[in-house]
Amino acid sequence: MSSVETLQARPAPSAGRRTFNVAIVGATGAVGVELMGCLERRDFPVGELKLLASARSAGKTLTFRGRPVAIEALTPESFQGVDFALFSAGASISREFAPHAEAAGCVVVDNSSAFRMAEGVPLVVPEVNPQALARQAPLVANPNCVAAIAVMALQPLHAHNPLTRVIGATYQSASGAGAAAMAELEASTAAQLAGEAYEPKVLPHPYAFNLFSHNAAVDPASGYNGEELKAMEEIRKIMSTPDLRLSFTCVRVPVLRAHSMALTVEFERPVTPAEAREWLSAAPGVRVVDDAANNHFPMPNEASGRDEVLVGRIRQDLGDPSGRTLSLFAVGDQLLKGAALNAVQIAEALVAAR
Amino acid sequence: MSSVETLQARPAPSAGRRTFNVAIVGATGAVGVELMGCLERRDFPVGELKLLASARSAGKTLTFRGRPVAIEALTPESFQGVDFALFSAGASISREFAPHAEAAGCVVVDNSSAFRMAEGVPLVVPEVNPQALARQAPLVANPNCVAAIAVMALQPLHAHNPLTRVIGATYQSASGAGAAAMAELEASTAAQLAGEAYEPKVLPHPYAFNLFSHNAAVDPASGYNGEELKAMEEIRKIMSTPDLRLSFTCVRVPVLRAHSMALTVEFERPVTPAEAREWLSAAPGVRVVDDAANNHFPMPNEASGRDEVLVGRIRQDLGDPSGRTLSLFAVGDQLLKGAALNAVQIAEALVAAR
Repeated sequence: MSSVETLQARPAPSAGRRTFNVAIVGATGAVGVELMGCLERRDFPVGELKLLASARSAGKTLTFRGRPVAIEALTPESFQGVDFALFSAGASISREFAPHAEAAGCVVVDNSSAFRMAEGVPLVVPEVNPQALARQAPLVANPNCVAAIAVMALQPLHAHNPLTRVIGATYQSASGAGAAAMAELEASTAAQLAGEAYEPKVLPHPYAFNLFSHNAAVDPASGYNGEELKAMEEIRKIMSTPDLRLSFTCVRVPVLRAHSMALTVEFERPVTPAEAREWLSAAPGVRVVDDAANNHFPMPNEASGRDEVLVGRIRQDLGDPSGRTLSLFAVGDQLLKGAALNAVQIAEALVAAR
Repeated sequence: MSSVETLQARPAPSAGRRTFNVAIVGATGAVGVELMGCLERRDFPVGELKLLASARSAGKTLTFRGRPVAIEALTPESFQGVDFALFSAGASISREFAPHAEAAGCVVVDNSSAFRMAEGVPLVVPEVNPQALARQAPLVANPNCVAAIAVMALQPLHAHNPLTRVIGATYQSASGAGAAAMAELEASTAAQLAGEAYEPKVLPHPYAFNLFSHNAAVDPASGYNGEELKAMEEIRKIMSTPDLRLSFTCVRVPVLRAHSMALTVEFERPVTPAEAREWLSAAPGVRVVDDAANNHFPMPNEASGRDEVLVGRIRQDLGDPSGRTLSLFAVGDQLLKGAALNAVQIAEALVAAR
């Protein structure tokens, strides 16, 4: 979905509505492009849009609501007059520039890992913990993509029957490593199909028709990689379940933009698949796709470009005779619910609370 | 690896050694081709090789040990004078023709699911349960590929500290659905890269840069699919652990020929990753690939064309404070240890026992 294609069919924001000036930091990245798309598509009341990126991209233009917007080089002074700054340019950029944005009176929604676990920083998935926004913090953190997608499937269950343990195995797409990784997946696959050699440049391992343990560094003490540890601690923070027992295995698969995960979910009390289906069907932002007769379950190609997290394969875990464990499979667009959509939803909730 | 490439470098069987006439049923399939390769590469004492397939393929030739072998149409009379018949043409062909092979005095090694769970039929992974071959049954079943690869990683652990529960999520390659599925993965991926439409013919869902729940039919009672149920019951039979609590989620990923799996393994007593690494390092047919510093773990591209099952990501499960659970990741070539290699290893063990 390009922003150019969608904008001409969309109305401009209602006349007379209060608008907010918005900056996107990392406008040229995979998430930056989707942030523009979400603002447009969801008719966020954008007054002025400021596109910020590295000096390398400055001067190029992107199109928003049918009009060209020039990309500016990010500087400490970029945030004057900005109401919301949506950061998606990595943790070090956030650490350096978010304080400047805050000093300029701007509310930061940060898609990086820089502040997610900081005391007092709300880490929010609006369908799950909107109450965390009540504090009117100057900075709200947008979760890791695995955490954001997982809690969409877990919270509606937890609300009815508390969870005690979750085991997750992920099938993560290239988009989580950015636009360059998506391009590398396509280029290396084309090379392999043509019988040509390809030297990986973005990811550490060959990606064509291959998979590998997530490329985040492995913590020598625990053996878990950074992606797994992030997902686990963030799920606990978002769900306010500090004692939830978690183990994730994060794997990069040759898929372009939606993340999948097999979840084994243990509850405090016995539970049935029918109950879980009912709870998930009623949850905003979730779509149950669980058609056993036609072998039709959540798939990345059907989750891509879509706001909802798809959940299916809901069944009683045959390995737990106590009847307290379910297995399920969830898929969500990493660039949307796993990043840009959730950030714009946070901004929407902040606007609604004003 | 084509059989043509390897055979010229290989010696013919030692002169004077006792030889056995071997038939391959399903010689033109993905596994059939690998069966020829394994017989050649492992210098199995083949006397006459008979290649059997459907009438459609009859008359074509394949090359074995540098000589052309004509493919014959499979008939009830095909097994006269044959010592070992290696079946890999699906369960219905095995059900129809294995009795003819047995009647002709031939020992059947069957790669299909037809007889695996039948009472009295040994289901064998030679590194795991060679004792099951002692019975000299006329038919030995070769396990489902997930089961064969999983038990290679599980049995060396179980032998030292009994397993009580295993949760598995698989990342299965195209080869498990045959040569046509491998071709469909390549063709549909090429089409997507070229921006062209592709209608799936072999698998039920789009496969290019996509994944989906395993295409085996779903059991309406349990919600598990046929692949998951097979893997679970076969693991219990091979390991002689009828009470082992199991749950598998089987997923088809866009990888060509090696199957991966994330395994959460619960033991009777507390266990450490160092112990597991030691036990697995000593296990025949297993290779520990667990280099956290370089983020180098088992991957399909390194398991493909290789006999060993690769095991890594061995770590204490942070979700089990009792210290009785490990997480690990195993990858094995579906066509080799998951099919052809294991079948030839069974035949080798039968020859050695004669």
